[in-house]
Amino acid sequence: MAEIHPTATVHEGTILGDGVRVLEYAVVGKQPTLGARSTASREPLQPATIGDGTVISTGAIVFAGSHIGANCIVGDQACIRERVTLGDDGIVGRGSLIENDTVVGAGARIQAGAYITAYSTLEDDVFIAPCVVTTNDNFMGRTERRKALMKGPTIRRGARIGGGAILCPGIEVGEEAFVGAGAVVTKDVPPGVVVVGSPARVLRDVSADELRRNGG
Amino acid sequence: MAEIHPTATVHEGTILGDGVRVLEYAVVGKQPTLGARSTASREPLQPATIGDGTVISTGAIVFAGSHIGANCIVGDQACIRERVTLGDDGIVGRGSLIENDTVVGAGARIQAGAYITAYSTLEDDVFIAPCVVTTNDNFMGRTERRKALMKGPTIRRGARIGGGAILCPGIEVGEEAFVGAGAVVTKDVPPGVVVVGSPARVLRDVSADELRRNGG
Amino acid sequence: MAEIHPTATVHEGTILGDGVRVLEYAVVGKQPTLGARSTASREPLQPATIGDGTVISTGAIVFAGSHIGANCIVGDQACIRERVTLGDDGIVGRGSLIENDTVVGAGARIQAGAYITAYSTLEDDVFIAPCVVTTNDNFMGRTERRKALMKGPTIRRGARIGGGAILCPGIEVGEEAFVGAGAVVTKDVPPGVVVVGSPARVLRDVSADELRRNGG
Repeated sequence: MAEIHPTATVHEGTILGDGVRVLEYAVVGKQPTLGARSTASREPLQPATIGDGTVISTGAIVFAGSHIGANCIVGDQACIRERVTLGDDGIVGRGSLIENDTVVGAGARIQAGAYITAYSTLEDDVFIAPCVVTTNDNFMGRTERRKALMKGPTIRRGARIGGGAILCPGIEVGEEAFVGAGAVVTKDVPPGVVVVGSPARVLRDVSADELRRNGG
Repeated sequence: MAEIHPTATVHEGTILGDGVRVLEYAVVGKQPTLGARSTASREPLQPATIGDGTVISTGAIVFAGSHIGANCIVGDQACIRERVTLGDDGIVGRGSLIENDTVVGAGARIQAGAYITAYSTLEDDVFIAPCVVTTNDNFMGRTERRKALMKGPTIRRGARIGGGAILCPGIEVGEEAFVGAGAVVTKDVPPGVVVVGSPARVLRDVSADELRRNGG
Repeated sequence: MAEIHPTATVHEGTILGDGVRVLEYAVVGKQPTLGARSTASREPLQPATIGDGTVISTGAIVFAGSHIGANCIVGDQACIRERVTLGDDGIVGRGSLIENDTVVGAGARIQAGAYITAYSTLEDDVFIAPCVVTTNDNFMGRTERRKALMKGPTIRRGARIGGGAILCPGIEVGEEAFVGAGAVVTKDVPPGVVVVGSPARVLRDVSADELRRNGG
């Protein structure tokens, strides 16, 4: 049984798991309104599915065609667009946006105010600090060839991205890497290193006690 | 005829064009609440007008005194303050804010999470990437003389501003210029050039195939 | 007497002062939903209290356990988490988030889209420009020792933080200091100076006519 606040809107066809809670003014299963020049697909969407024990918080929006795992928290005023997959035990912080066609692994902690662009891949156990910005289009809406080249970030297992950091289009951040707060990342980040600055440069290796295989 | 979701609030006097859609929990025609020290005008406001075919999305807010063109999308959870003009075919991305007394030309694409400060001018066909920040007050709320000097950016026709870039007060970005992701722009940007970095510096000309006059 | 819009939700036990207004779809007195790994306290919360003459704007959220002073404006779509104290005459701009266990003095002006992390201290008369980002965890969710070291910024009386600036964890910004737009602050900022850049460096003293003791 799901618990839907009387002020919330759950669109027809949405599949809510056991123990799901949908809080005040949240909207689940919404259809997108696409602009004339949007590059998002116009195929019919599957219903949204929300896994057991997940909470869709106050004022949050989850679009049709997305699949949210079990025991997740979709934070207040957050928004998850169509064709997003969010693994179990994930957190999407207050006000964050996950754009269409993005895959997020299990145990991801996306903090408040983060912007995850369309066509991104975030593997298990990534940590996205508040107000991180990601991008996917070096052409910013110009040229036809951009449509083939549009690519969000690939953030490998256990990587951490610091507060307000900005990732340029198509960046890969390696496993267990650490991007400092405010870094502007213009090149791929190797696994297990700390990068800082604008443009971001390698500073040192991540401390051993912060690695997940060491219980960090 | 407009289509207003039963949970939306359209304030009295608002003028909605043909085919306008107002989605869940959106508010149109709201009066501002001004702080004691706000520099915004306290004159009575005209009603909000929303052009034919425009969509005011879920949880979005449009204030009284603003005029939204035809076939626009005001994205989910976005906010448009009083005395804003938005041209036809404009997009205001999810969660973005356009502050009071700002003029945005036709065909502007303001992506998600952007902040357009008060007293800004954005000409036709500008592209504002996600999470761009603009500013208008070098004095940050101090001195009387700041009130005469307060000035938002002027972003000329077809210019593009990259993800998370920050524009200092009063900056002019020239026609068809390109500001890279994460740039901090402290000086005017000439037309047709690419600037990057913090502080932003000219890197090269914009590629010919990205110019609008070449069909970019 | 308080004025509560019929679409707003005020949770039981909340204490609203005289002349308080709660606008469309706002939620006051909400209980938090904590993730399994959240470091926030799980103690029972006191009711939220809202001081005389304060406005909780459209779509805003104020959690239980927080105390908002008199004559404040909590802006549209803003969010104030549990155990926050906001002094009299404060402004929390549209869409801003103040995380749990934060103290904000009287007369603070937090502009739109700012992110104030948990365990922060903001003294009287601070000015936080739009889209400022603060952080509190150098370990980004790893190690046990981080829990003792987690620390938000301390922003002293009358200090001003520029648009889109980023403060690293535990930073102290001195009285009347000025942090330029887009700065990335990695070290404490002395009182009364201007810092700019990434990483931020001292540029000069704050102009005398901008100091509060000179009527700035």
